[in-house]
Amino acid sequence: MSKTALLIGRFQPFHNGHMEMIRKVMAECDHIVIGIGSAQYSHIEKDPFTAGERYFMIAEALRSEGYTGFYIVPIEDLNRYSVWVSQVESMCPPFQVVYSNNPYTRRLFLEAGYEVRNSPLYNRAEYSGTEVRNRIREGKEWEHLVPDAVAKVIREVDGVNRITEIGESDEYRW
Amino acid sequence: MSKTALLIGRFQPFHNGHMEMIRKVMAECDHIVIGIGSAQYSHIEKDPFTAGERYFMIAEALRSEGYTGFYIVPIEDLNRYSVWVSQVESMCPPFQVVYSNNPYTRRLFLEAGYEVRNSPLYNRAEYSGTEVRNRIREGKEWEHLVPDAVAKVIREVDGVNRITEIGESDEYRW
Amino acid sequence: MSKTALLIGRFQPFHNGHMEMIRKVMAECDHIVIGIGSAQYSHIEKDPFTAGERYFMIAEALRSEGYTGFYIVPIEDLNRYSVWVSQVESMCPPFQVVYSNNPYTRRLFLEAGYEVRNSPLYNRAEYSGTEVRNRIREGKEWEHLVPDAVAKVIREVDGVNRITEIGESDEYRW
Amino acid sequence: MSKTALLIGRFQPFHNGHMEMIRKVMAECDHIVIGIGSAQYSHIEKDPFTAGERYFMIAEALRSEGYTGFYIVPIEDLNRYSVWVSQVESMCPPFQVVYSNNPYTRRLFLEAGYEVRNSPLYNRAEYSGTEVRNRIREGKEWEHLVPDAVAKVIREVDGVNRITEIGESDEYRW
Amino acid sequence: MSKTALLIGRFQPFHNGHMEMIRKVMAECDHIVIGIGSAQYSHIEKDPFTAGERYFMIAEALRSEGYTGFYIVPIEDLNRYSVWVSQVESMCPPFQVVYSNNPYTRRLFLEAGYEVRNSPLYNRAEYSGTEVRNRIREGKEWEHLVPDAVAKVIREVDGVNRITEIGESDEYRW
Amino acid sequence: MSKTALLIGRFQPFHNGHMEMIRKVMAECDHIVIGIGSAQYSHIEKDPFTAGERYFMIAEALRSEGYTGFYIVPIEDLNRYSVWVSQVESMCPPFQVVYSNNPYTRRLFLEAGYEVRNSPLYNRAEYSGTEVRNRIREGKEWEHLVPDAVAKVIREVDGVNRITEIGESDEYRW
Repeated sequence: MSKTALLIGRFQPFHNGHMEMIRKVMAECDHIVIGIGSAQYSHIEKDPFTAGERYFMIAEALRSEGYTGFYIVPIEDLNRYSVWVSQVESMCPPFQVVYSNNPYTRRLFLEAGYEVRNSPLYNRAEYSGTEVRNRIREGKEWEHLVPDAVAKVIREVDGVNRITEIGESDEYRW
Repeated sequence: MSKTALLIGRFQPFHNGHMEMIRKVMAECDHIVIGIGSAQYSHIEKDPFTAGERYFMIAEALRSEGYTGFYIVPIEDLNRYSVWVSQVESMCPPFQVVYSNNPYTRRLFLEAGYEVRNSPLYNRAEYSGTEVRNRIREGKEWEHLVPDAVAKVIREVDGVNRITEIGESDEYRW
Repeated sequence: MSKTALLIGRFQPFHNGHMEMIRKVMAECDHIVIGIGSAQYSHIEKDPFTAGERYFMIAEALRSEGYTGFYIVPIEDLNRYSVWVSQVESMCPPFQVVYSNNPYTRRLFLEAGYEVRNSPLYNRAEYSGTEVRNRIREGKEWEHLVPDAVAKVIREVDGVNRITEIGESDEYRW
Repeated sequence: MSKTALLIGRFQPFHNGHMEMIRKVMAECDHIVIGIGSAQYSHIEKDPFTAGERYFMIAEALRSEGYTGFYIVPIEDLNRYSVWVSQVESMCPPFQVVYSNNPYTRRLFLEAGYEVRNSPLYNRAEYSGTEVRNRIREGKEWEHLVPDAVAKVIREVDGVNRITEIGESDEYRW
Repeated sequence: MSKTALLIGRFQPFHNGHMEMIRKVMAECDHIVIGIGSAQYSHIEKDPFTAGERYFMIAEALRSEGYTGFYIVPIEDLNRYSVWVSQVESMCPPFQVVYSNNPYTRRLFLEAGYEVRNSPLYNRAEYSGTEVRNRIREGKEWEHLVPDAVAKVIREVDGVNRITEIGESDEYRW
Repeated sequence: MSKTALLIGRFQPFHNGHMEMIRKVMAECDHIVIGIGSAQYSHIEKDPFTAGERYFMIAEALRSEGYTGFYIVPIEDLNRYSVWVSQVESMCPPFQVVYSNNPYTRRLFLEAGYEVRNSPLYNRAEYSGTEVRNRIREGKEWEHLVPDAVAKVIREVDGVNRITEIGESDEYRW
């Protein structure tokens, strides 16, 4: 019987480490549901891109590698963690295995009876969303850290200017 | 330059009329964003299926016909219509054309400056979500009205029993 | 091992039929969680009393009959039915059996794996919240339909005037 | 000591009857807080205009008559009526008297200890928001029913087309 | 005339200090409403237990001491503090006195006209929710700090493992 | 053609620096929409005053200087920044220019196609909401930092006591 994995991330932005992780999950499972977490956030330092922009990045990157057996689903954060697993289940195609290294996610899906596996490893020193955003803000090289399709989307949505401008401040919106 | 269409529906369930409409849109545009409207509703007579179940139906049906250039996005209803276009934009990959025959959707996207086209026609007498749900509830033939992949999903999620049971009542939940 | 039942109602107001139903459940189970549904509503024709007023009615009525093994929990309606069982579970002490005659409640708790039983019967022709509210509005006898403790609470919160006044209109709040 | 009145309406749109009512309240009180109710709604048949458009209509109409002692405040509907008075109090400058003929509003403010007066009368057969919207939709004369300043705002926001288009349908947004 | 006190806490978990405080309040008042604050939170380091689990702990602890004149009410945090007193009033049986040492709670209930008293003292060095959670996480003795009934509930809901696992991380949920 | 400016602030409280800024904007534009940001917050150290109290302060201060061409609009914070410009547009009379020095506000209105100008300068060392709140809390002189009309409102709503009491704690509400 075919097996579908769930993998949730913020993907701010989607980078080569994520790509590597998905490749490994796809080697273990038949299909993958990629949940875009914190879907409601955008235009802030830690979360510059909208859910739609992140959806576009991931879809383009996966298709450019020839993948088709994936489902991308934006998932909003709830502060009510006790119903979060139900919320995820109701928004996603059916899945059987959850990949996560995060204690909260692991605990919540374990209590709900799911099989929870450790996320496949990748080089976290080199690949991280924080690193990509910092490099963009500081005007350094960043495009080699993300799939070509992602770099293209970031440029199309004027992402470099967005990150640079909102990164100048950690104050209130007014 | 490539063109992406937006098409929003409730898809309760996805049926042959929807499939026909998507075929026609795909003939006019390069890509299509399929918004699953009223994403938060399920388990009620008019909206029996969760967003995740509808996502699964649509993806399976489109893939079984060989389509790949589509993006499926669950979109929750907001009562604050004035921000609804912004909400849709933030959850979806970029789109340029909106297909709709509904006056509200048309007006809101027109005021926001979008090109709005009439949805391609299909045989609405034969194909409608209401008709499919009624037939399931009454124990009549219904599988010929939906793609094979959809019928399979409905059976897998025990959809026939769900529709039959919740259809027996239009009262409060208690 | 002891068994705890869940019973959800709107209790607008709590009446002798509810009391009878609880007596029967308490004969079958060790403890009962009484969920006050639609907890956020009040001051409207169908839902005149606040959750706190309903809590007070039920607690006083049960205590005046000598019951102690009960837990009263206000539960707000969610429009997102797919997470409603999780929401109820997170707000209530643990329960194992759900009593309900309502198709929606039955279906949702069945899909979540609970044992669901039919609510014990009582004389619904005589006892109903609608009937009590109508009688209050029309100035007829109503106190014999509710436990004494409930009649006392309704008088204390000026419930007769509230029901009479808001019942004169079914228009908007302005 | 000066007295401030609260008057809440939907003002879809603001018409001559509202203007007359405000003139009478201003003769009895020193200042008036005009609450724009159902502030979150717009672009639907019963509520075509946004809170901002309604704010603009009222401010222009009152200023064109030379009034200055008024405060206009958009107020969103809450389904939780028990906290609605607190919500209104927190959004408005201090007021002492509430004008309303609506049973719900009257009851809620009375329970909170306010002096509640009947709204001053005006010719409701001639002046009503429903009548203005119907006339616009049917292409009849409507401008004589509203202050000149309001007619100007409705034309500026393309209100005639908005009402006409969304009025063609009472179906779902899709 | 009988007097009912309101006492609000997070009770993460309910411990001997809370028990002592309630004993003192019960000596001064006839009844007590125990509000479970931050009711929507659970499964995070500072708030590991659901409202339902906390309800169960408190009810079991009070009953094991023979108390009956209490009402336990889960109360969700609102960010809109100006309506919070109204929210609490609408969810709870009527109360006349508020016990609190917290400046915010004191101020809000004072502005609403309530009698506000200082919470009875207990040994805060020894008894605190933070201390209990830390000891559980570190594998130290903790059961002597809580009523027996509470220790039993924590073990039943697998609370030790939950606190230990989610305590290992202060990062995002993914 | 006349020009309307939008200026958003928290105004906790409205002080002489804000007044000076508004004078400069009014010299450049015909009308001004003053958005009261974070409208839902009050009774906390950083945001002691309700939206209604802030509305009253601003209106009284502007009127005492003879201004009339202004519109004051409470605007609630949304965590969903991608729809925030739409939200502001729907709550305010039409505006064409946005004054802001804040990177987030600037970026969001720029992406939406607005003309965004730097806020006029004023002496920020002397005039700031934080400074006024600190002085009130510490019992120092503060009335010279705000318009007379504002000082009067703060005294009327017992603002000095409110700020002093809630300022004693930065803990949870319980």
